[in-house]
Amino acid sequence: MHIDDIDTPALVLDLDVCERNIQRFQSFFDEHGVGFRPHIKTHKIPELARWQVDAGAMGITCQKLGEVEVMADAGLDNILLYYNIVGEPKLERLCRLSQRCDLTVTADSPVVTDAMGTAAVKQGAVINVLAELGSFNDRTGVPSVPDLVELGRHIDRTAGLNLRGMATYPTGRQNADRVAEAVQAFDRAGLNREIVSGGGTPTASEVDSIDGLTEHRAGTYIFMDRQCIDRGVAAEADCALQVLTTVVSNPVPHRAIIDGGTKTFSADGDMPRGMVLDFPGAEIYQTNEEHGFLDIGKCDPRPSIGDRIRVIPNHVCVTVNLHNQVYGCRGNEVERVWPVAARGLVQ
Amino acid sequence: MHIDDIDTPALVLDLDVCERNIQRFQSFFDEHGVGFRPHIKTHKIPELARWQVDAGAMGITCQKLGEVEVMADAGLDNILLYYNIVGEPKLERLCRLSQRCDLTVTADSPVVTDAMGTAAVKQGAVINVLAELGSFNDRTGVPSVPDLVELGRHIDRTAGLNLRGMATYPTGRQNADRVAEAVQAFDRAGLNREIVSGGGTPTASEVDSIDGLTEHRAGTYIFMDRQCIDRGVAAEADCALQVLTTVVSNPVPHRAIIDGGTKTFSADGDMPRGMVLDFPGAEIYQTNEEHGFLDIGKCDPRPSIGDRIRVIPNHVCVTVNLHNQVYGCRGNEVERVWPVAARGLVQ
Repeated sequence: MHIDDIDTPALVLDLDVCERNIQRFQSFFDEHGVGFRPHIKTHKIPELARWQVDAGAMGITCQKLGEVEVMADAGLDNILLYYNIVGEPKLERLCRLSQRCDLTVTADSPVVTDAMGTAAVKQGAVINVLAELGSFNDRTGVPSVPDLVELGRHIDRTAGLNLRGMATYPTGRQNADRVAEAVQAFDRAGLNREIVSGGGTPTASEVDSIDGLTEHRAGTYIFMDRQCIDRGVAAEADCALQVLTTVVSNPVPHRAIIDGGTKTFSADGDMPRGMVLDFPGAEIYQTNEEHGFLDIGKCDPRPSIGDRIRVIPNHVCVTVNLHNQVYGCRGNEVERVWPVAARGLVQ
Repeated sequence: MHIDDIDTPALVLDLDVCERNIQRFQSFFDEHGVGFRPHIKTHKIPELARWQVDAGAMGITCQKLGEVEVMADAGLDNILLYYNIVGEPKLERLCRLSQRCDLTVTADSPVVTDAMGTAAVKQGAVINVLAELGSFNDRTGVPSVPDLVELGRHIDRTAGLNLRGMATYPTGRQNADRVAEAVQAFDRAGLNREIVSGGGTPTASEVDSIDGLTEHRAGTYIFMDRQCIDRGVAAEADCALQVLTTVVSNPVPHRAIIDGGTKTFSADGDMPRGMVLDFPGAEIYQTNEEHGFLDIGKCDPRPSIGDRIRVIPNHVCVTVNLHNQVYGCRGNEVERVWPVAARGLVQ
């Protein structure tokens, strides 16, 4: 199948660029002696996870139980589930997964780990746990290093749980001291920290600044996107995944409408909604559900109805999550069509 | 199945409220003698489309060919596809659909209708077309009434096409004069305008102000959402669809994290990201992919880990589009679990 035979809108993945991103990040972490654990939330495709592992990744990261199930079913192993797992149905699934693959999960509260331990004992499982330290994003994770040590001790003495270390997100120069402090505190407390896990694509290059880090997680790097370009961590040529669209309307000379809107790109990120390729000067200044509004006043030549336009999305992780499939292309040939296998498994 | 047995995050639909919305809008249009053609882009579920038709809707509206195919397969008929259909693969599908159901499509350019006519003649089909007039949203549609008449004449003399009238979006008091002018111009030109189709949920109540309108399209009304509340067209009690979430983290007293973010709610609309029920004063002030950040500083009592929290999404159409299924509930009982059948059929 030729790339021109893909109907639009569609996600088109340049496999050469994708492989280069996989290799480049893996080589970087190999050089720095830090394990690399790619986050599959970006692509949700088992075969791409396999490519990452084959390139040298120590394992993978997931954000949802449903993602872990899809990946484990496909034979992936050594999985970190970076999420507090809450509620009996999920804890049962977590136990079952723990019995069939090498799985570790993060937790930031004894309320979470107590329920986890109870479920593990009941099901005869042992759940590997990392205590989660809060970071400068003020999301999950205990707020201080003393809290982390207390949580670590709590996990350590909870039946059914196996404390393996700690994790935080994101990591970079900004919180290097804090991570180092946590590592020392775990050592002083005699707590296992065989895993010290950091994360983030934009801060991946700062991994050297963090003493004690055993592994780093990153997701977006495999595809890159406009936000990565804006943050200076990717060039346009590093963006492997593009939204292929068609101009469907051109009602006035300066405005074209493409067949992709918030149900194709998502509404993530600031305007413009992605970076328009093929027609320099064209900019998506607005999106409705199935319409992208292009200002083409500065284009020469201007696109017209039927023209195909590729767009680098603002935030590729949420874009992929909207689609049922990705067309993997080598040059102009479609080499693979992958279902986004773990999409929609929100629980 | 009890509503408490639904794992989170999940879309929970109050069937009583949904039925009331369907009845209320249908009654309104019945009273005003204007046909009602619900837009299924909001729910993408054939059985809900059937409910809308059974309540008295003249037919349905779709935005994508894939949606039409799913609805036609489920036995729905009298379908308006409000979108410029461009490109041979889609035109072939459009012809096939035209041969198996009562389908009408909009178009805003002779470039679009010429290709449509060629495809229709080739496949021995006749495609019903509405000429699309631009509106105050500056999206698709020809920019003026004279342009509309010219397009109407063009469609009228194109082999394979059957001009049925005109359509525009949105319609309300703001463009009532323009629609009336277009209707008169079509009459003067001797062009068929058996269908004059307007649309929009927020402006549905203004349907009386538009002379010549034969039908109105609305989608969001079936579920309503926070944006409808903000625009004054819905009360909280009219919002039939809620995102059911669980508090998974509570790292500091004023912040709780729920298991829903941009992959569950979408990033549409201004902050806060939806309207939090159950815990008055709680507000979603930020979302990551799988995390919703709740400010619970003003709550009394405050939610804690494991508590379930229902959220009315900002924009329900894009929220539903993220999920594989909807749990239809009557009181606390789950009565139906519907796959979002036309989701992901972006082409």
